[in-house]
Amino acid sequence: MRNVREVKFNVITDNRGKMIPVEYPKQLEFPLKRIYYIYDVGEGIRRGFHSHNDLEQVLIAVNGTVKILVKTPYEEEIVELNDPSKGLYIGPMVWREMFDFSENSVLLVLASHEYDESDYIRDYNIYEHKAKTYFRRRK
Amino acid sequence: MRNVREVKFNVITDNRGKMIPVEYPKQLEFPLKRIYYIYDVGEGIRRGFHSHNDLEQVLIAVNGTVKILVKTPYEEEIVELNDPSKGLYIGPMVWREMFDFSENSVLLVLASHEYDESDYIRDYNIYEHKAKTYFRRRK
Repeated sequence: MRNVREVKFNVITDNRGKMIPVEYPKQLEFPLKRIYYIYDVGEGIRRGFHSHNDLEQVLIAVNGTVKILVKTPYEEEIVELNDPSKGLYIGPMVWREMFDFSENSVLLVLASHEYDESDYIRDYNIYEHKAKTYFRRRK
Repeated sequence: MRNVREVKFNVITDNRGKMIPVEYPKQLEFPLKRIYYIYDVGEGIRRGFHSHNDLEQVLIAVNGTVKILVKTPYEEEIVELNDPSKGLYIGPMVWREMFDFSENSVLLVLASHEYDESDYIRDYNIYEHKAKTYFRRRK
């Protein structure tokens, strides 16, 4: 769907284990300005519930599994992250919700910009309105 | 010890779980140019065995536990990483070895520069010689 795609990272495997490097522009399409990781998420918890005006992100379950709902006014998809080499790119103006965090799951998020509260859209109705304008301009 | 220190990241905790953000310069002392993560490391494996001329890194066990030996010609320490909020800063000219990776451990490494093979020192004798010069100049 628009502004969302799965990315596959190259795994360096040898008898010492597995290693995945990520740097711009080799494995990542934006310069890495911020990371965060989410863990200790209880059963039944659903989080996210926002979009960004400009921010680009790649989400990776570096341990365990997490499901991601990505949604625009036109499309909707659920992606299960279940492999450290599988990333989910989420561009601007995509609503996202994260759920079904497995025990010991760790969701690593790579972001294209520093934290900026003004870039968040946390109200779905406002999001839907803005997103319709955004995607109409980009048809 | 010199060029090595533990860093503590701020954890944002609420009823949805835990979240740790890392960006420069708020939580990190160098701009984030590269990350890599190491996982699926078998029992008894020891890895690392190198130093860097210039690279700065922060190591974090985002899941499980990992032990890190950090060593210079003058000092030596073993640090157990066992908490996603605990990082180990390793600056230039420090020999490092990683071992005792627990099951499902994931070692996340944040680095100050893109990958550069010429920055690695992989021979301990060459390292020791270079490190003595390096630390003598910085006394």
